[in-house]
Amino acid sequence: GMNRPLCAMLFLQFLLDGEEATKHFLQELVNILLAYINKSFKRSSKVLDFHYPHQLKEGLEGFSLELPDQPDNLEQLLVDCRDTLKYGVKTGHPRFFNQLSTGLDIIGLAGEWLTSTANTNMFTYEISPVFILMEEVVLRKMHSIIGWPEEDGDGIFCPGGTMSNLYSVLLARFHRFPVVKTHGMSAIPRLALFTSVHSHYSIKKSAAVLGIGSENVIVVRCDERGKMISSELNSSIETAKSKGLVPFYVNATAGTTVYGAFDPLNEIADICEHHGLWMHVDAAWGGGLLLSNKHRVKLQGIKRAHSVTWNPHKMMGVPLQCSTILVKRKGLLQECNQLCAEYLFQPDKHYDVSYDTGDKSIQCGRHVDVFKLWLMWKAKGSEGFEAQINHCLENAEYLYYKLKRRADFQLVFKGKPEHSNVCFWYLPKRLQSTLPSPERDRELHMVSQEMKPFHFLINQ
Amino acid sequence: GMNRPLCAMLFLQFLLDGEEATKHFLQELVNILLAYINKSFKRSSKVLDFHYPHQLKEGLEGFSLELPDQPDNLEQLLVDCRDTLKYGVKTGHPRFFNQLSTGLDIIGLAGEWLTSTANTNMFTYEISPVFILMEEVVLRKMHSIIGWPEEDGDGIFCPGGTMSNLYSVLLARFHRFPVVKTHGMSAIPRLALFTSVHSHYSIKKSAAVLGIGSENVIVVRCDERGKMISSELNSSIETAKSKGLVPFYVNATAGTTVYGAFDPLNEIADICEHHGLWMHVDAAWGGGLLLSNKHRVKLQGIKRAHSVTWNPHKMMGVPLQCSTILVKRKGLLQECNQLCAEYLFQPDKHYDVSYDTGDKSIQCGRHVDVFKLWLMWKAKGSEGFEAQINHCLENAEYLYYKLKRRADFQLVFKGKPEHSNVCFWYLPKRLQSTLPSPERDRELHMVSQEMKPFHFLINQ
Repeated sequence: GMNRPLCAMLFLQFLLDGEEATKHFLQELVNILLAYINKSFKRSSKVLDFHYPHQLKEGLEGFSLELPDQPDNLEQLLVDCRDTLKYGVKTGHPRFFNQLSTGLDIIGLAGEWLTSTANTNMFTYEISPVFILMEEVVLRKMHSIIGWPEEDGDGIFCPGGTMSNLYSVLLARFHRFPVVKTHGMSAIPRLALFTSVHSHYSIKKSAAVLGIGSENVIVVRCDERGKMISSELNSSIETAKSKGLVPFYVNATAGTTVYGAFDPLNEIADICEHHGLWMHVDAAWGGGLLLSNKHRVKLQGIKRAHSVTWNPHKMMGVPLQCSTILVKRKGLLQECNQLCAEYLFQPDKHYDVSYDTGDKSIQCGRHVDVFKLWLMWKAKGSEGFEAQINHCLENAEYLYYKLKRRADFQLVFKGKPEHSNVCFWYLPKRLQSTLPSPERDRELHMVSQEMKPFHFLINQ
Repeated sequence: GMNRPLCAMLFLQFLLDGEEATKHFLQELVNILLAYINKSFKRSSKVLDFHYPHQLKEGLEGFSLELPDQPDNLEQLLVDCRDTLKYGVKTGHPRFFNQLSTGLDIIGLAGEWLTSTANTNMFTYEISPVFILMEEVVLRKMHSIIGWPEEDGDGIFCPGGTMSNLYSVLLARFHRFPVVKTHGMSAIPRLALFTSVHSHYSIKKSAAVLGIGSENVIVVRCDERGKMISSELNSSIETAKSKGLVPFYVNATAGTTVYGAFDPLNEIADICEHHGLWMHVDAAWGGGLLLSNKHRVKLQGIKRAHSVTWNPHKMMGVPLQCSTILVKRKGLLQECNQLCAEYLFQPDKHYDVSYDTGDKSIQCGRHVDVFKLWLMWKAKGSEGFEAQINHCLENAEYLYYKLKRRADFQLVFKGKPEHSNVCFWYLPKRLQSTLPSPERDRELHMVSQEMKPFHFLINQ
């Protein structure tokens, strides 16, 4: 290999004029942030003071987005910070109901402030000793919650659930055909993978990115609750085989994006075992329920998976981003992804280089996403997470029963919600006595477009 | 498509006991961070108080990494925060010289604190109106600095330079063979791509991930300064063609990782044009020099590239992570990556949905990486960045001349450094009069292993 001379990369320190000015500026910024947090938690404040793109671009009340040649002064920067928050969405607001994350956990936030102050990277132990070990501790905890034996279990934090799912397909392909790493898809047969019609679009996206092709993702039908029908999975696999495709991977979803449905994991695991396929569980959204003794039964069979996606930034309320890919077989991530760049991962260091986890990743530099979760776990304990999740699902049940009793709402599917998703149509008076028809569906669709929380909130 | 009922995802607010307690806790944390920053900037403090993994895992002075069932109290959490910083690496320290990022920019840090407080996501305009527009403004600025005409230019922030480079290969493949998105690599011929022996390992990693195969990356030889030899590139392309491979992509590096070398971009562009290949420039490290009127000549020809990787978290000193992939042809990112998930990217919104940039990404959720850069640009102006980069390169030249005059150091290559990398061997007395030989090289290698900044600093 290439020899490694010493390289001194010379940088400046970019401190403001002295210690006092630095402290003063950051304290002023913190005061703005504290005021914002306080306002975010108040029901009486707006979730969003909406403006159209052209309005913001024109520079509302002197808030200019353009980049100058000459420096602005510190006072102006603080004004810019205030304006940035003013025109943004208060995602911590009690009435914010968009997407699968909400709330602003103060401990998690503190963790993120510390992380940015530490300003380091996850490639090696020497650059991130504490965070690397925290990642190990947190991942080990998550393995044990899944139910994997102690000698099993590997994983990595990565930038979002879609990347976690991409890892799972990448690993499954490498596990079945290790030659793909060096020789590519042209050295192996045409692959097929399976996921349900209600699953997240990231499975198709992964297939497109990895060179498998989105059309080789076979979409399996679901029941009316949004759960994959396992007999359909089985026949889809048979059909693919008969067409000359090589099935290698099944994604089961624990907590679908829209319905919050849980696929039947044990049935799917049986089918995967029968056909010799990699079983992945996308528990990005539903993984949090594993922390609840009451609700974890919905994920029964998850320990039979070869890999699991679990996003603590969703149901566990950790600030964005915090997502994991958990892999049962130790060492596979490293084998699949390592390239042993010598400038970074020297084998002859004076500590155990198995802690240099950077080569497990498909990234090089990797943001520290673990600390906020670690700190929140310290603050709540496993029991705190359990209580929080139970309470959240009780609230969903409460809403479900409220809507069920009303003539102006119609629930999308029968039965209590399994997750915190409650799906409903609003029925204006004129539609309450209309029989179901495609025409009525179109109208309901338009009503819901008008009603969606976004409009709700800006008009309040 | 699937209809879209309304989903209410119910969460709790996880505020601490009341407003005052929240404020008090965060203020205490900020005091810890301010003390840490202050200490980081002092030359007299240690860069790292090194401990081996087993020492940290055993729980130094009561600092336990293990996750509890029961909550810890707030006082304990603050102690944990202090300990986390205490055993970590002070990457902002004036004597920290590891990897390609260093320094702690106070404005950038403020930007990151605000970003985590806003706790939002980059998928749509409705969830991130201000940050989406800032991304547009900053990317447009970067396009114009590269020299692309105003009607061209697209891009996205992504989690690190390796991901940026992966995007470039993905886009080049799709541009040449759009069918690959749906039908995969089995529908297209065997591809070959080209990069220099001194280039970053992410090009090989991308080929492995994308199903092209790392062995289909043809490694082109460099001159003694680490620059790609363009005639070698040309003959490598001819050879690959004669073997039945289909060349489609060339990566040129502007600022190699170890030597800081700049490939001859215009010569490479000529070859790419001749053979009809996609030209990517990995300017992750060297991109910053574009901001300097004195040094941008080193990247002459970059405007002829189809895509450029440029990491503001490297030479521009932005806190981690801040990395871009810049693409000349508008719309290609969207065509290549979009899957139009209806729950997120509804076409019938009441604002211009071209601002819903999430479907350009291979991620779904995407961390807000733009704000800290935007705020730093406001604080320094383009001129501030230029002065900072010029000064940094002057320092490198100063070190180069210092080392050149000394008998106990040997520079790795002749001539002034082009970037801030200064590469040298330390020659202990016993080796100063030894003639070059493999044996001597091995010894120098061992010396440099002992000398490397890491050891330097913990022993000081």
